[in-house]
Formats: sequence, C-alpha cells, structure tokens
Amino acid sequence: LNIALLAGDGIGPEVIDQAVKVSNAIAKKFNHEIAWTSALTGAAAIDAVGEPYPDETHAVCMAADAVLFGAIGHPRFDNDPTAKVRPEQGLLKMRKALGLYANVRPTFTFPSLIDNSPLKRERIEGTDLIILRELTGGIYFGERGRKDDGNTAFDTCTYTKEEVERLAKLGFEMALQRSKKLCCVDKANVLETSRLWRQTVQAMEKDYPEVTVSYEFVDAVAMRLVQWPSSYDVIITENLFGDILTDEASVISGSMGLMPSSSIGVHTSLFEPIHGSYPQAAGKDIANPLATVLSAAMMFEDAFGLKEEAQAIRDVVNKSLAEGVVTEDLAGKNKAYKTSEVGDWLA
Amino acid sequence: LNIALLAGDGIGPEVIDQAVKVSNAIAKKFNHEIAWTSALTGAAAIDAVGEPYPDETHAVCMAADAVLFGAIGHPRFDNDPTAKVRPEQGLLKMRKALGLYANVRPTFTFPSLIDNSPLKRERIEGTDLIILRELTGGIYFGERGRKDDGNTAFDTCTYTKEEVERLAKLGFEMALQRSKKLCCVDKANVLETSRLWRQTVQAMEKDYPEVTVSYEFVDAVAMRLVQWPSSYDVIITENLFGDILTDEASVISGSMGLMPSSSIGVHTSLFEPIHGSYPQAAGKDIANPLATVLSAAMMFEDAFGLKEEAQAIRDVVNKSLAEGVVTEDLAGKNKAYKTSEVGDWLA
Ligand SMILES: CC(C)[C@H](C(=O)O)[C@@H](O)C(=O)O
Ligand SMILES: CC(C)[C@H](C(=O)O)[C@@H](O)C(=O)O
Repeated sequence: LNIALLAGDGIGPEVIDQAVKVSNAIAKKFNHEIAWTSALTGAAAIDAVGEPYPDETHAVCMAADAVLFGAIGHPRFDNDPTAKVRPEQGLLKMRKALGLYANVRPTFTFPSLIDNSPLKRERIEGTDLIILRELTGGIYFGERGRKDDGNTAFDTCTYTKEEVERLAKLGFEMALQRSKKLCCVDKANVLETSRLWRQTVQAMEKDYPEVTVSYEFVDAVAMRLVQWPSSYDVIITENLFGDILTDEASVISGSMGLMPSSSIGVHTSLFEPIHGSYPQAAGKDIANPLATVLSAAMMFEDAFGLKEEAQAIRDVVNKSLAEGVVTEDLAGKNKAYKTSEVGDWLA
Repeated sequence: LNIALLAGDGIGPEVIDQAVKVSNAIAKKFNHEIAWTSALTGAAAIDAVGEPYPDETHAVCMAADAVLFGAIGHPRFDNDPTAKVRPEQGLLKMRKALGLYANVRPTFTFPSLIDNSPLKRERIEGTDLIILRELTGGIYFGERGRKDDGNTAFDTCTYTKEEVERLAKLGFEMALQRSKKLCCVDKANVLETSRLWRQTVQAMEKDYPEVTVSYEFVDAVAMRLVQWPSSYDVIITENLFGDILTDEASVISGSMGLMPSSSIGVHTSLFEPIHGSYPQAAGKDIANPLATVLSAAMMFEDAFGLKEEAQAIRDVVNKSLAEGVVTEDLAGKNKAYKTSEVGDWLA
C-alpha cells in the first residue's frame, strides 16, 4: 500500500504519527506492506522551500494510491492580509492538481460522546448524515483581484454543468446506498451558479427514480442543521457553502475531534481529519488523534477496499472511548491521556 | 409618524396586522398619530402589477420615516430556476434603492423560552449578540450570468473600502455601547474581498482604542456560534456570510419566532421579523406575530427615538409570554392562541 504522508502544520504531525502507528499495526496483523512517503506541505513547506505545495510533494501524491493528510494553516499568516504566500494556497493548489473534486464529510454520533454535544440529546440522537462538498470549483478558484488602487476587491464564483453533474452523481449514488434522500443546498433565489446547480440536479432526478430530492437554501439549512440534524441524509453543495456547513455540522455531534473525511479525486484520494491545525496545541502532545486514525480507517476501506482492516480500526477506537483512553478534550474529570499514549494504546 | 407598511407574502400580512394593532394602541396611549401607507411587494406585487418592488412602492418608502415589513417569498418561484421575475428580486431592489446597507440582527434569549432552544441551557444562557450584516454589496449585487450556451454560470462578489468602512463604523460604535468586543468575520484565507474587509477593519482599529477586535473565519464562526454563542458580542460581516450566520444564530436562542431586525438605510430604515414567509402557515392564523411586534418596538426606538413606547411594547410581549398567551409554536401542551388573538391581547 503506497501512501503519501502529508503531516502539515500545527498538530498535524502529532496526530498523523498516531495514524501511522495504528496503520502499521493493522498492516502487520493483516499481512500488508505499507510504503509511506512523507512530503512537505503548508507553512512547513513554505519555511523549507518557499512554497506551500511544492512540485516534489505533488509528485509524491501522484505516485501514491492514497494520501493521508494532517492539517495546514498557521496564525502567523492569518493576520497578515498582504502575505504573498499562504499555507492555504497549498491546500487549494493540491486539491486542484489532484482533482479532488468531492469532499465527503460524515457527521454521526458516538453514543458515549453524545452528551458532549452542545445540542440536547433528543435533537442529536440518530444523526447520521454526509455532506458532499464540491472541492475544486466555485469562488475558491475563480478570478479575483483588486481595482481602484486596491480599494475595490472582487472574487468570482463559477460553475459548469459538468462540475455539478460529477458531484451530484456521487450524491445520488450515496443516497441509493443509504436512506435514499438527497438534499441539494444552494442559494438559487439569488445566485446564478445556484440556479445552474438546481437545474442540473433537477435534470438528473429522472435517472434516479428511487431517490427523493429536496432543494433547500443555504441559510435555511444552516438553521435546520442545528434544529433537526437527524432529518438529513445526504447533502450535496458547492464549495463555499460546503465549507461553512460541514464545519457547522462537525460540532453538533459532540464528536468534532473524531470526524474523518475523504476527498475523492481524479488522480488519487485524500484522507484527513476535519479539524484544523489547532496551533495553540501544537507540540504539546494533547491533541485528539482519533479523527486522523478514523481517516486512516476510511482510507483502508475506500482507497484499498480493505473493509475488515477498516473495521478493526473503528473497533479499537470505540474500545478506547469505552475504556476512557482519551485525550483531555474527551476526558472530562477523568485522567487525560497524551496524544502519543492514545496512539500507542490503539496500536 | 409616517410609516410605510409592506406586508408581503405568506404569513407577512397576518403578522403585520398584529404589529399595526399594537402600534396603534401604543400611539393612542402616548398621543402620537400614525399615518400608515400600505404598498405591494414580493409575489403579491408580481401578481398585481408584474413587479416585485414597483416604483409606486418605492415612492411610498421614500416618503416614509420608517418601513415596517412582513416577509416575502413564495415556493411557486423556488422550484423554477428559470423564472424571469422572482419575489426576492424585489427585496434586493428595495435594499439597494433605499440604501439599506446594514442589517442589524440581535440574538438574545427570553428566559421563559430558553428550554425551546436546541442547545443545552448552559450553552445558550447569557447569549446576547448582534450580527451586523452588510446588505447592499457583495455577491448579491455583483455581475452574474451564463456562458457556453447556459452551461457555465458565474456570480461576482465585489466590495469597496468605503462599503466596508460604513458597515464597520456602525459595528465599532455598537461595540462601544456594549461590551466593547467586535468580531470581524471573513474568509481572508481564500477571498480577496475578505482580505479587503480585514485590512480595512484593521486600519480602523486605532480610532477605537477601547474596542477589542478579533478576526475569525466564517467556517470557524459557524461552529463557535453553536458551541459558545455567549462568547460573541458584536459581529460584523459581509452580505452572504451574514445571511447564513444570522439565520443560524436565530435558531440557537430558541426564540426564532421572536427575533426582530432592522435595516439601517441612507434614505429610510426598515424593520422586519427575521423569519421568512412560511407559506405552509399562510392564511391559517397560526403564525407567531411576536417578531413583527418586536420589530415595531425597534422602529419606535430607533427610527423615532421613542424609547418609552418601545419599552411598553417589549413589556407587554414579555407579559404575554409569562401568561402563556402564545401561538402554537410556543404553546407546548398548553392552549395555543391564534395569531390574531395574540395581537388583540397585546393591543
Ligand atoms: C484552510 C481553508 C482554505 C479550507 C477551506 O476553506 O477549504 C478549510 O477551511 C477546509 O475546509 O478545508
Ligand atoms: C430572500 C433572500 C433573498 C434573503 C437574503 O438572502 O438576503 C433572505 O434570506 C434574507 O436573509 O433576508
């Protein structure tokens, strides 16, 4: 199993280390051989070679069967709106170069963690939804710039019918595997790109007669996700709305530190925790590694078709939760384990 | 008091009726004279004259000291992405024509309703925040269209430094009146318009040394609003982010049906409930009129400087809640009053 390892910034390296330990243990148990190839990305890559997604890193990813990714971003860049090179550019360049067009973000609840949710138990129970976020189009990749001596700024959001179809197809197919409900989220009452989305998805409905499709405005969904998250199954949406809604969805379950994600690509697929680089915790050995470990499980299942291996990882994660071998964010009044201790225990 | 009355669509007319009753009762008690001038807007205006914001309606608004607004939008238009005239165009045209550049949306909790919140009591208690949404710029008003035989769509987001300054100034001033915390929400790690926002607000900081300003990404705020809403005070943001975040914020308090809003304009100011046109309930006399009644209170205070009158309205609303004279959405297992009955009782 040929895996590119992109640890990135902040807590990235620490959580990635634990996923590597667990993956190696699984490989040993099931007789696989993993070839890990590490490569630089994010602020770490800017510091080393002046580029957040160097060509060498791209070559490593292209040669791999899957990419395991930590997190990128550094506060040093956030408060400098004029910085010429920024870690996030690397992320966006990577998404585009690898053709990672669909970000798959599940939100589900761990029974043992349900009381961590900011939502009341009866609101969150039974929630099991997937947001499919389009990841290589929209306002993230349109033309942008300044005019009038820098006093006017603009960004352009663009979508083609093909881009919408590609993402929507995945959504319809996932819905077929699940409870056959698809929700297309847009702002068709204002945006032309949203009207293209709605029109395109409407035209595809006839090919999936078993799937019930609903169309909702992004502002309404931002509400309903908090009110009745369990009413959703598969949600498809464009890049920027997906960015906002997936993050919102991630905290409602009470299991934010545990949510994995994958990005399905033309050239390869990428697996990463949904949390950020959490710079305040970097180097402290306190970050929760479970989302990254569960991302590795997703990788075994989706990139390599190794279901049993994936399930073994999920089982040991559940066991660690049940036995309280958890980092401080989940420990409550009990003993908090270090990031590396959790990784060792799981492995 | 010269007030333009725009009832709009769906439940708009019903809830507006109650606000008129209450305003008239207040005017009588405090010896004011109100001249109401009704005008058409939304789907209602399309049906009558083919235009969602007719010139005549604009003239009525321009001549008024304040506009009291219900809601617009009709599902008939939502699922027809090709409709040429849509109710929302009227809303946008009105915002632009009246120069309503700042939408002020408070989110606070009513102690008696706190258990209606989807959030746990300890998460929501003490929440009292204001989102200031820029309302006449951004992707709502940029160039948009189709190319490639309709297969490519685009929308443009544009902001000028002056637009940002105008909105941010209000934000700084509000923060000074409150707990002196201002949060600027953007996506400066991706968007050029966001970088202009951040840069412009940063440059204004020196004029308000007492205000502590933080800068957060919209995806992070979508999370933190659910996790720790009480950590926010005044939030400023651009049009589309404001659309999503204000709606998200509106449901966390458990008092969605009660939240008023105002839009501060160059020519006049507009007051409206934050809920939508709720077409399923239209004509049934079941919609909660309190948000519209509280919008009238905001109008008395902010447009006419009549604080005592505003407080009298807020007091009677609190009384109706305490005594359980409420519509079905708030009645729980108790008797539900009709929209019109609540209005009569308040008046
Ligand atoms: C870091 C940033 C550019 C990125 C995004 O907005 O896509 C992040 O928020 C994410 O969701 O992966
Ligand atoms: C109806 C729609 C155009 C409008 C908006 O997006 O501004 C509404 O959602 C609002 O927030 O007032």
